[in-house]
Amino acid sequence: MSLLPSRNALVPFVSVDNMMRLVLHVGIEEMMQGIATEIEADFRRWPLFDKTPRVASHSEIGVIELMPTSDGETYGFKYVNGHPSNMKKGLQTVTAFGLLADVATGYPVMLSEMTILTALRTAATSAVAAKWLAPKGASVMAMIGNGAQAEFQALAFKAICGIREVRLYDIDPVATEKCARNLAGRGLTVVPCHSAEQAILGAQILTTCTADKQNATILTDNMVGAGVHINAVGGDCPGKTELHRDILTRSSIFVEYPPQTRIEGEIQQLAADYPVTELWQVMTGAVAGRQAGEEITLFDSVGFAIEDFSALRYVHAQLKATGLSQNLDMIADPDDPRDLFGMILRASQG
Amino acid sequence: MSLLPSRNALVPFVSVDNMMRLVLHVGIEEMMQGIATEIEADFRRWPLFDKTPRVASHSEIGVIELMPTSDGETYGFKYVNGHPSNMKKGLQTVTAFGLLADVATGYPVMLSEMTILTALRTAATSAVAAKWLAPKGASVMAMIGNGAQAEFQALAFKAICGIREVRLYDIDPVATEKCARNLAGRGLTVVPCHSAEQAILGAQILTTCTADKQNATILTDNMVGAGVHINAVGGDCPGKTELHRDILTRSSIFVEYPPQTRIEGEIQQLAADYPVTELWQVMTGAVAGRQAGEEITLFDSVGFAIEDFSALRYVHAQLKATGLSQNLDMIADPDDPRDLFGMILRASQG
Repeated sequence: MSLLPSRNALVPFVSVDNMMRLVLHVGIEEMMQGIATEIEADFRRWPLFDKTPRVASHSEIGVIELMPTSDGETYGFKYVNGHPSNMKKGLQTVTAFGLLADVATGYPVMLSEMTILTALRTAATSAVAAKWLAPKGASVMAMIGNGAQAEFQALAFKAICGIREVRLYDIDPVATEKCARNLAGRGLTVVPCHSAEQAILGAQILTTCTADKQNATILTDNMVGAGVHINAVGGDCPGKTELHRDILTRSSIFVEYPPQTRIEGEIQQLAADYPVTELWQVMTGAVAGRQAGEEITLFDSVGFAIEDFSALRYVHAQLKATGLSQNLDMIADPDDPRDLFGMILRASQG
Repeated sequence: MSLLPSRNALVPFVSVDNMMRLVLHVGIEEMMQGIATEIEADFRRWPLFDKTPRVASHSEIGVIELMPTSDGETYGFKYVNGHPSNMKKGLQTVTAFGLLADVATGYPVMLSEMTILTALRTAATSAVAAKWLAPKGASVMAMIGNGAQAEFQALAFKAICGIREVRLYDIDPVATEKCARNLAGRGLTVVPCHSAEQAILGAQILTTCTADKQNATILTDNMVGAGVHINAVGGDCPGKTELHRDILTRSSIFVEYPPQTRIEGEIQQLAADYPVTELWQVMTGAVAGRQAGEEITLFDSVGFAIEDFSALRYVHAQLKATGLSQNLDMIADPDDPRDLFGMILRASQG
């Protein structure tokens, strides 16, 4: 009788360090392309998934959420917080980790950091949506909000949508400098701007990604011309929006999962039955995406559990070839499954 | 600028091995007493907690659940599966892990195995309930179902309720033998029995803890005499019950959290408005527990997130003195919180 953990007891864990190694090994744009491929594949089989709005625990200064889903064979969930005031403390606004498990046994098959992975999947999802919705030939993106997510958005839109120029604006010029510095030499024309108005000049895609918890108006109605695609990333919890309501009513609105987006997204500002289109239905061809050149399309992104599931599946598929994980002794797995107590007793003789 | 993970990035992890060491270091009965103290303390401040029925993902052969709660300062959740068919595959029916996090920042403060810890907290909760509900001077317990939870129940009732004799019965005599062997020499009179009827002879407390998913009738009405306390542990998901309905209508029923128990507990069999008492209100003195000697009290236990929270808090409080954890590099924590991208770039120079 072995006193070492059994194979079932060991769960591969992808640390922050190993996630960074994986990103560098695969290449950041290539990895977002790979995750985008998984996201599209999962969106096309959307009806098959167990779907539920995230389970949120709100406090006065932030939120902690669990985001579970399952495709019937694999179960996944993400733990994620959102604390805008963290930045002042030198902490991340959003941190996350996630898990995949085998539906047949309930045993976990991978635990992973997801702070970095969430940044990758959020940008990949935005770019996939724009691939389906943005005007043909879009090559310039305004990037309003130059925080932790900005570089990922810029590179995902380069890799997946063919964007050539990003125009950066943030209320804090230090954030813009940081973003421009990180994007230098990566094949994008990077234009730091002094106002949101300047940033959107000539842009076919407008991305907003700010972290204020209050209702804010990052874009006003007069700033948004005909024919653009808006990628609204930052409004993602109750009371947190970025766009003026008048922009919404001029736009065709596309969302991930309506029951969640109506609580958390820009469409909080609209009636509960205001018509929106589910992005997955555009991908399956069930409904049209962009229908006219002058149309304003809006992806009201809040982030959904299926995207995390897709990203975790991507990472899991890389583990064998790369070895970029360590084993955690996380599941008590006695030789006789009914003898949990005896396993503890025998540990004293180990 | 350091390339090593910062202190914020590291989350103490209690592996299965370290949990076993902790149990052996503290003593199993002492640890259940310690957890019981935390559970009682948390039940007394029940209204303060964020409460939600667990978030369950059901498949044909099992369930995977997330059980979150928060007291406003600390957030906790547990991942737990229930797969009765696992045992035939040599796997645990129930495995679990859990996490505590700081509500103020959303950062995790401890990750822990919870397969063993769930066994301890489930038994501690049962014993705490019986301390408040069982007839005075109860000294004999029938233990029907001798699987992975049985020894923990027996020892918790010894340590917390003063039980001196356990009478064991399981449809599989091998399980009873295992249980009797593990309990030998621990200060309990252990009586293996050949039927449920024999097991309940002279018992003031009847504990049922079986793992069938189907509605089963472990106890029929004629087996339950006046004045006993029933501790129904095994009925804990939709369609899974252990007691005949007629027993329920003869009993005063005590539950953890009615919205969850009505879905998962024995009271699935009763009308949705059938009167039940919340255990925490007995502890605060708001309502009466047992009121008469001939009364049948029933604790319809399904397990609630606050009990896991209490158990995790107990373990967390032991970490500093015992050192029984390892640090996981789980939270990406760049020096500049807005520079997640730069952290990845710098890793390539590490």
